[in-house]
Amino acid sequence: MSVKINNKFLDGFVNEADVASMTKRAYSAQELLKSKKGPGNDYIGWVELPENYDKDEFARIKIAAEKIKKSCDILVVIGIGGSYLGARAAIEFVKSPLYNNLKKDTPDIYFAGNTISTTALTELLSICEGKDICLNVISKSGTTTEPAIAFRVFKALLNEKYGEQGARERIFVTTDKERGTLKQFSDEAGYETFVVPDDVGGRYSVLTAVGLLPIACAGIDIEAMMKGAYDSMKACELSDSEKNPALSYAIYRNVLLEAGKSTEILVGYEPYLLMLNEWWKQLYGESEGKEHKGIFPASVIFSTDLHSLGQYIQDGKRNLFETVIDVKKSCEDFIIPNDPRNVDGLNFISGEALSHVNSTAMLATLIAHNDGGVPNIVVEVKDKSAYTFGYLVYFFEYACAISGYILGVNPFDQPGVEAYKKNMFALLGKPGYEGMRAELEKRALNK
Amino acid sequence: MSVKINNKFLDGFVNEADVASMTKRAYSAQELLKSKKGPGNDYIGWVELPENYDKDEFARIKIAAEKIKKSCDILVVIGIGGSYLGARAAIEFVKSPLYNNLKKDTPDIYFAGNTISTTALTELLSICEGKDICLNVISKSGTTTEPAIAFRVFKALLNEKYGEQGARERIFVTTDKERGTLKQFSDEAGYETFVVPDDVGGRYSVLTAVGLLPIACAGIDIEAMMKGAYDSMKACELSDSEKNPALSYAIYRNVLLEAGKSTEILVGYEPYLLMLNEWWKQLYGESEGKEHKGIFPASVIFSTDLHSLGQYIQDGKRNLFETVIDVKKSCEDFIIPNDPRNVDGLNFISGEALSHVNSTAMLATLIAHNDGGVPNIVVEVKDKSAYTFGYLVYFFEYACAISGYILGVNPFDQPGVEAYKKNMFALLGKPGYEGMRAELEKRALNK
Repeated sequence: MSVKINNKFLDGFVNEADVASMTKRAYSAQELLKSKKGPGNDYIGWVELPENYDKDEFARIKIAAEKIKKSCDILVVIGIGGSYLGARAAIEFVKSPLYNNLKKDTPDIYFAGNTISTTALTELLSICEGKDICLNVISKSGTTTEPAIAFRVFKALLNEKYGEQGARERIFVTTDKERGTLKQFSDEAGYETFVVPDDVGGRYSVLTAVGLLPIACAGIDIEAMMKGAYDSMKACELSDSEKNPALSYAIYRNVLLEAGKSTEILVGYEPYLLMLNEWWKQLYGESEGKEHKGIFPASVIFSTDLHSLGQYIQDGKRNLFETVIDVKKSCEDFIIPNDPRNVDGLNFISGEALSHVNSTAMLATLIAHNDGGVPNIVVEVKDKSAYTFGYLVYFFEYACAISGYILGVNPFDQPGVEAYKKNMFALLGKPGYEGMRAELEKRALNK
Repeated sequence: MSVKINNKFLDGFVNEADVASMTKRAYSAQELLKSKKGPGNDYIGWVELPENYDKDEFARIKIAAEKIKKSCDILVVIGIGGSYLGARAAIEFVKSPLYNNLKKDTPDIYFAGNTISTTALTELLSICEGKDICLNVISKSGTTTEPAIAFRVFKALLNEKYGEQGARERIFVTTDKERGTLKQFSDEAGYETFVVPDDVGGRYSVLTAVGLLPIACAGIDIEAMMKGAYDSMKACELSDSEKNPALSYAIYRNVLLEAGKSTEILVGYEPYLLMLNEWWKQLYGESEGKEHKGIFPASVIFSTDLHSLGQYIQDGKRNLFETVIDVKKSCEDFIIPNDPRNVDGLNFISGEALSHVNSTAMLATLIAHNDGGVPNIVVEVKDKSAYTFGYLVYFFEYACAISGYILGVNPFDQPGVEAYKKNMFALLGKPGYEGMRAELEKRALNK
């Protein structure tokens, strides 16, 4: 298995009775998910996706990626939330967080439309100057503020640079399969389109065209990724928590939550895990953070952050637990050179592989944090391949659905995300929000 | 003032009596700090630093920065924790998170030695191929594992590339002023050295040579930064919480903590604030997270993360509050173009400045999160200048010291950071740790 749960660093923090009781609840949650009758059941298309995905579209994605790779220096990917984090997590995991700075035969990939920052937009425009550009805009509705603004700007740039005819060959749109103005406009303009499925929510969409097109453009093997997800699906189907890592993870984190551990810190020991952490935070935070419930998702990269949040984790408030991603093999070994002078006193590790020092730091930290009162779930991950990324992503998705059902919430909606949007539309004078506007302006004036 | 506290989004969450009572405690904490007799009083050199800093060394820093700017394509900065986060936060804040990808007349700056990752090290080495390199290694003792390994590797690279004579002109060492093997070795090797002061802890060190040399190499005006810190110091000296934003911030966050809000999320609306968030997390987490006390520091960048952690913040467990960095002016305005077709329905904001939409999103979110039960402290910040960065950094440092004294901890030590290090040294076979090793290996084997 590419993903396994090691529960040894939970010793003394969870007891058998609580685990047994939670296991029953996890089995019920799994049955509910399988029955397709649970809350949010119109958004469970991701469950069978690794088997049922649209093979024709998948082939088109590969062709489009080849075309993009040949025709540009920079691919600008426009999207926010689930239309941003998954692809970026994959590229950083399989390739590198320094992907854009490394020598390579694939285009640089920049993400836009995930902020309303003027500095971010103008800086990206300056980076694009004199470069050949392709665009992948990802938006189900086409009306989400952040990506819509970015698409206005970059579409105009491409039209100016290449003419409408030329731009048409460089703009790729991932959107609703038939509804929505973006789909209609794309068809008229002659842009190639890909589908955001109706039954897959944004945070579960990385293995659809939403994630796959940009991922393929980075030169990542999306066939292998889907195979990993498929094998993960097969493991997650099992109704045995000993053999099913997703059930196991969901069980332990809920036992910990009920024991008062209300913050979960996802821990990686490699900088390439940073955006996976961010993707995970959306997946779990948005799925569970409702009805005043849920585990608060935080994240760190060690050993970097052992020199930052390490102190708090070791000795601060004891309301947290860690989930550690333990990647067994990242890359070729690097041997620590000897220093005849031993200026730094480190000759006791001369000749050792750096990865050995890193995994020893992990073991040392697991023991230290256990001793400090922090339970640790360890997710053992084979490597940083595309296959493993697909496996890991599906594992987390499945565990999240089970976990949400255990918690008693709908893990597939996100009603709270609308609150700020409604206020924003009203304050900006969007037609239809006139009623709210006066009241909000009054409140704002009093501030 | 470059930094002001807006408390309007605390309405209904804090009451006058609690604030009055906490204000008294803040004044006592301030007196304790000023008396120089509080816990950790051997590490309060940062308090008067903006006035007392070593002017001769400051001049040398500027000269060294000019030399580095002229002689390399890439400056590799080796350091971890406080010897990493401050400089990176400054460069991203004043310049850009895309600093290395933007056209500029200053060197690219990469940070190394802040991780034990093999991928990170080998990727950086490949980026350095064929480039002219300078090195700034920052380590008080010279024996911290992560930077020491990186220094071994990059020192060897420079010696090989330029010869020992040539490398000498390219290696700059920031370390203890007299003790430690790194200082001794640097003097022998002929490297120029700068000082990590004895009375300034890592997380308070950004305004010393630790931060200033790399910051100056990015072309940032460090004189202006020190002037900002100086003016901030003058504001923070005031014994009036109405006029002193640091007292005000310390008071509100402790009132909220005592009301059960045990997680603080630092919120920015610009990607250039991301590393400031990380710097802040070390400052507060390491200063307060001890004796099973302290506020857990988390962070987000909105609107990006409104599509990620937004749901949780709006509707999840109500044990959190937000502190929002509201930068009033980031850069020149960017006007949102009109779209005659109005495909995205956004023509109601055509012709508006993007910054107006961003600040409206902030206001909308403040109101929405208040309505959801989340108190918000707003830190109003004038702009993203070097002056303001210095001002803001000193403000946060001072507020942290006050806050730690209110909490009743020593805000200047970090005893918990040693726990994992000791285990790691023992497991790696460092001389002197033989006793621990057998026991830890036995524990590890049982895992």
